[in-house]
Amino acid sequence: MTPLANDTLLRALRREPTPYVPIWLMRQAGRYLPEYATLRARAGSFMALATNPSLATEATLQPLARFSLDAAILFSDILTVPDAMGLGLAFSEGEGPRFARTASDERAIGALAIPDLARLRYVFDAIGEIKQALAGRVPLIGFAGSPFTLACYMIEGRGSTDFATVRRMAVARPDLVDRIVRVNADAVAAYLAEQARAGADALMLFDTWGGLLAPSAYRRFSLEPMRAILARLPEGMPTILFTRGAYASLPAIVDSGAACIGLDWTADLGEARRRHGERVAFQGNLDPIALTADAASVERAVGEVVAAAGAAPGYVFNLGHGVVPTTPPENVAALVEVVHRFTDRRGSSGSPSTRRAN
Amino acid sequence: MTPLANDTLLRALRREPTPYVPIWLMRQAGRYLPEYATLRARAGSFMALATNPSLATEATLQPLARFSLDAAILFSDILTVPDAMGLGLAFSEGEGPRFARTASDERAIGALAIPDLARLRYVFDAIGEIKQALAGRVPLIGFAGSPFTLACYMIEGRGSTDFATVRRMAVARPDLVDRIVRVNADAVAAYLAEQARAGADALMLFDTWGGLLAPSAYRRFSLEPMRAILARLPEGMPTILFTRGAYASLPAIVDSGAACIGLDWTADLGEARRRHGERVAFQGNLDPIALTADAASVERAVGEVVAAAGAAPGYVFNLGHGVVPTTPPENVAALVEVVHRFTDRRGSSGSPSTRRAN
Repeated sequence: MTPLANDTLLRALRREPTPYVPIWLMRQAGRYLPEYATLRARAGSFMALATNPSLATEATLQPLARFSLDAAILFSDILTVPDAMGLGLAFSEGEGPRFARTASDERAIGALAIPDLARLRYVFDAIGEIKQALAGRVPLIGFAGSPFTLACYMIEGRGSTDFATVRRMAVARPDLVDRIVRVNADAVAAYLAEQARAGADALMLFDTWGGLLAPSAYRRFSLEPMRAILARLPEGMPTILFTRGAYASLPAIVDSGAACIGLDWTADLGEARRRHGERVAFQGNLDPIALTADAASVERAVGEVVAAAGAAPGYVFNLGHGVVPTTPPENVAALVEVVHRFTDRRGSSGSPSTRRAN
Repeated sequence: MTPLANDTLLRALRREPTPYVPIWLMRQAGRYLPEYATLRARAGSFMALATNPSLATEATLQPLARFSLDAAILFSDILTVPDAMGLGLAFSEGEGPRFARTASDERAIGALAIPDLARLRYVFDAIGEIKQALAGRVPLIGFAGSPFTLACYMIEGRGSTDFATVRRMAVARPDLVDRIVRVNADAVAAYLAEQARAGADALMLFDTWGGLLAPSAYRRFSLEPMRAILARLPEGMPTILFTRGAYASLPAIVDSGAACIGLDWTADLGEARRRHGERVAFQGNLDPIALTADAASVERAVGEVVAAAGAAPGYVFNLGHGVVPTTPPENVAALVEVVHRFTDRRGSSGSPSTRRAN
């Protein structure tokens, strides 16, 4: 194992002091980068890219060649696990993910089983290849979709703005939703443990859709399965749990066992840090749309987030959701520079707002 | 003025005891009712329906002919105000609202002015006609869109899932968003005051999109203008403020001056009531999708919401957002019956969960 040259992310996740606030971005590899578009075209399809360890390695490293990011994140998709369960994942241009088969009735849900991890070997191989290519420069984050978020796509077969079918099932047939998230939790726990064995330095659960649920339903169908996964990961593995739009459940999320809680841009980062900052680290929460504005506006918006986070250890800068495709890459460069500059605890170059926060 | 035969809503808004929890539903008049579809077809277009006081009266009364609802709400649209400003509102089938002109640049935003209220006379006439037809059976709720929610449509010209242009403007040109929400606040304050003069018994601000903003931006661009409106309404007028998805800002919302705070289904109604129930009434928050499930599931879901609300005065049952078009009308009938039965404080017919909550 190569020791890490830059371990600021792992220190921040453990709430240890760091010389500056580490930054990485959800979807830091992807459509806003022209070199990604080229790679994607070369691969032929998203799945061809994601399932080829060498191409996935290339996509993972692209943003690190441009920006002084403090972490790499595996280039992959949250839906690899249900694909390995046999649902047949495909991505059509501009339409997002689509499953050939859904798991939307009692029979199909009853038939779901933990997939043979050999079907996900391309992911573990990519992790090995990425770790080798990184050569200890920064840590590598592995990830998986949350059991409930996977269930949303497995039940409806594709993306949705409201996942009405899933929400109705959660009310009318909670037993079926329980069953599907339990299988998913078992599968994701095995999948993430294997990512750790392959070399991932930290692990993240992406819960894009749990926040669509009422708080009691969120706790039952989304948070509880995530807690079960976190309890089964290797001791000491740094973990990040991100649910979009579940601020009403934050105290329960803080109790999930995750080392770090990701916050979307509608969350109150300052309040979260004041109330729970002694127990968990936080990650987030700049509005991704702010990154599509002019450089001066980006700098001002970053200053506000950094001031809200305060100077206590245990904070990782990120967006409140993924980088949007219309983001100018030069804004990401400016963002990384400005986060590092504003939060530098070694010199005196912080912004006025940061200094106030200190 | 005819005295009200059923004033449970107004009492609940004032946090006075009521014999049972009053219920009304956002979008209780509308597309899920076959008689509404007939009326809409007869009118020719949504705007023809909404701008004709007699037809608007008929639409308003339709759900009251079927269900023992405790309030009527004016049949209208949140976008009447920018339409009166000259932006040219139209609704195309299945596509939602659309403005002929947008207010998306400095010039257009600078040219915005408070509309002549005579252009909204059809609304005040409808209120007069509805009040006469109701003959004091239940109170009538008047309403308007929040200044920020109106701004979303005025800037983008139509609906959106993320209102990215508005969010970018809030970061890059906060002065322009300030200007548009200030004009909107002045217009809405005059509009609602006139609705009160025309006979509305309570007034509601619908803030569908404020929750898309980061908390500091929400407070500046959405909550502050709503507070300014509330401060200018007639003394003692019962008011309801509903922002979808802004749970992180609940303490600030409670301080807005509204008598009652509407909560969407992702909010924690029990926590809100425990923390703030001595200061404001709350309204909500059943997931509208629950109303599309079977009757037994609806009853179970209602029991959970009623239990979370608890027995203290100051609670109005409602959905967490509008009735969805696929809702079976018989489910609304069952909902109203079950809310009244579960919360009846005169007898012993409450549900087990309600009794526990008492």
